[in-house]
Parts: sequence; C-alpha cells; structure tokens
Amino acid sequence: MILIGQYDSPFVRRVGIALTLYGMAFEHRPWSSFGDADKIRTYNPLTRVPTLVLDDGTVLSDSHLILDYLDGIVAPATALAPRSEPERHSHLRIAGLATGCADKAVSLFYEKVLHKETSDLWLQRCAAQINGTLVMLEATYGGLNGGYVSGALGHADIATGCMWRFLIEAHPGFIDVACYPALVALSARLEALPAFQTIAQRFIAPA
Amino acid sequence: MILIGQYDSPFVRRVGIALTLYGMAFEHRPWSSFGDADKIRTYNPLTRVPTLVLDDGTVLSDSHLILDYLDGIVAPATALAPRSEPERHSHLRIAGLATGCADKAVSLFYEKVLHKETSDLWLQRCAAQINGTLVMLEATYGGLNGGYVSGALGHADIATGCMWRFLIEAHPGFIDVACYPALVALSARLEALPAFQTIAQRFIAPA
Repeated sequence: MILIGQYDSPFVRRVGIALTLYGMAFEHRPWSSFGDADKIRTYNPLTRVPTLVLDDGTVLSDSHLILDYLDGIVAPATALAPRSEPERHSHLRIAGLATGCADKAVSLFYEKVLHKETSDLWLQRCAAQINGTLVMLEATYGGLNGGYVSGALGHADIATGCMWRFLIEAHPGFIDVACYPALVALSARLEALPAFQTIAQRFIAPA
Repeated sequence: MILIGQYDSPFVRRVGIALTLYGMAFEHRPWSSFGDADKIRTYNPLTRVPTLVLDDGTVLSDSHLILDYLDGIVAPATALAPRSEPERHSHLRIAGLATGCADKAVSLFYEKVLHKETSDLWLQRCAAQINGTLVMLEATYGGLNGGYVSGALGHADIATGCMWRFLIEAHPGFIDVACYPALVALSARLEALPAFQTIAQRFIAPA
C-alpha cells in the first residue's frame, strides 16, 4: 500500500497512525496537496490527501472511508472502532466531531492564506464551529478520566489528537488552551506514544 | 429521528433519500446551515448539515458516518452498501468520489459568494478537481451500461445523482454536460424515482 500525503495534515496522520497500530506495512509519499497536485492526480482526480493506493491499484480517499476499509480487513481485535451497533456510531460520532473540527481548521487556514481580503462571515463561522466542537470534545474527554472513548485507543481518540495538534500548530494563539485541560492531557498522552511520535510532521504553511 | 438540512444540499439529500428507501420515518427540519446556524447549534456545534438526531438524542453528522449507522441497523437486504469486503470498499470508493466532487462544488460556490476578490488558485483547483472526478465517474457509469455500482441502487449511485444535480443547479454552464452522457442518463433515471422526486429542493443561493 502507498499512503500519499504529509503528516502535518490531521487526516493523513490519522490514517498513518492507524496503519502503524495495525502493524501494516506501507510506503509513504509525503506529497503536498497543492505543490504536488500533478503527482497526486495520477492516482486521485480529487488531488486530496490522504490518498491510499491499495496493492491491487484501487485508490481510496476520505479518511473515514479509508479507515472503514482497513478496519474491515484486520483481525477483529485489531480494529480501531467497534464493528457493531450501538457501540459503533457512539465511537464514530466522536471521530466525526474531531474530523469536522479539523476540517474547519483547514478551511480557516486556506481562507487566510488565499485571500488578501478575507470573509469575516467565514472566519467568524469557522471560529464558532471550532470552539463549539472543542467544548463538546472537552466534555467528552473530561468525563472519561484519562480513558479513551471505547476503552482501548481507537479512531475517535486518534482523530481528536491529530486535530488538536494541527489546530495548535496551524493557528498559534487561536484557542485558549486553558479552557480545554482534558484535551491538553489527551494530546500529551497520545503524542508520547510511539505511533504518534513516528507518524508526525510539524505543520509547515505552504508557500 | 430528525433530519436537519435542506435538500438542495447533496449531502442532506443523499441521507433523506436513503431514509426514504429504507422506509424509515423521520421528521425533516429544512434549516439553512448559514441562516439557521443558531438553531442547528443547539444540536450540533459544527452547525453542519446533514445533522441527524436519533430518537435517544444522539446527534450524528457527516453523511458517510450517518449512512454507516443507518445501514448497520436495517435488515441486511435493505442496506444500501455491501457490508463485507472487498465489495464494500469498491462501492464506497465511488460514493467518496461523488461526495468529494460535491464538496468541491460547494467550496467553489462559497468562494464566489463570500469574496469580492476570489482566489484564482482556489477556483482553478476546484474546477480541475471537479472535472477530473467527473471524468472518472463517467467512465465508471459508462461501463455499467445503465446499471448501478453494486447491482441494486446504493449509496454510490445516490451520491453521484445528488452531486450531479447540485453541480448543474449551483453552477449553471460550468461543466460541459455533453462530455458526460452516462452521468446525464444516470441522473435522468434517478430523478424519475419516487424517492428522488420526494426528497428534492431546487438549489437556492443563500442571500
């Protein structure tokens, strides 16, 4: 398998960390979705990352769909989300909040970097979406007392950790970290894990 | 269940159509993600649509995750995507291309409506992403000779149909429909189905 995309993307990173935790071998092509769009396009017309190229040449995009596939081919005990309802949607709901928040953090970044005159409406909307979602995630993790959403480490926790680091690095000073002690503690715990240390790249703003 | 969002969103519509095909009863709140953000926020801090409120109050967002849940609670024969690999990722791959394309069509729309001075880089990137993905979807449906991705109508086909109509209505004249005869035929076939006729709203640009 080939994983395309840089680990400063919270979406690429969550897939890379999952692959590492599954113990699956993969090649990594740290291509930028802007600077290397022509290279990515030969695999994926959406030129989005993560793009995962399977051994048979099938190309998957969208981190939720990629992880759905990978979870479906590993041994049940290795899967990183529950496979049965109602546990499954309770878990994926948190992953969706984290990736939704990350998506807004990415959107906020591009709004600033691509426009001389930014849209106040869009910036304020992104800020409200990010902060509101962080409040909900903080309440979730605050109630878990140092634990993970579904007992063992899973996609929801990985997504939350990847989102948090991206938010802190791409938007320094944007959020008041003192308001989110449970997320700060979760991030510290996750970033100390070997998979998070291996699959990491400090955010670099595109030129 | 309560489905929040207007059917001119391809993401809300695909969920509404799936609920209809499942035969599941639901209330519909046609709230706008901009104009009714305060109302949506009481359920979902991301203020995104679709938002699905389950009967126990659990709130799901992201159309892939919502449909993953719904497919998991219906009878196997009623599910709209294969549940086992490798059929599952072959199906969801197409759904991901269609929703990715729809996402870019939405992004293109907001870029235009929110900025006096748009980013050429972003507009050109969206156009390339949309057209490249349409070429791939056209090849897929061209090869199916009037059929659906997995035999019976499923999420991939619904997502493609909803994306197509949104693209045509939100960006009139933007794509050369003559290049995509299989997608035109798919759309015509789908829009004639009762579920597509019931769950529909002509695109209205927000004020």
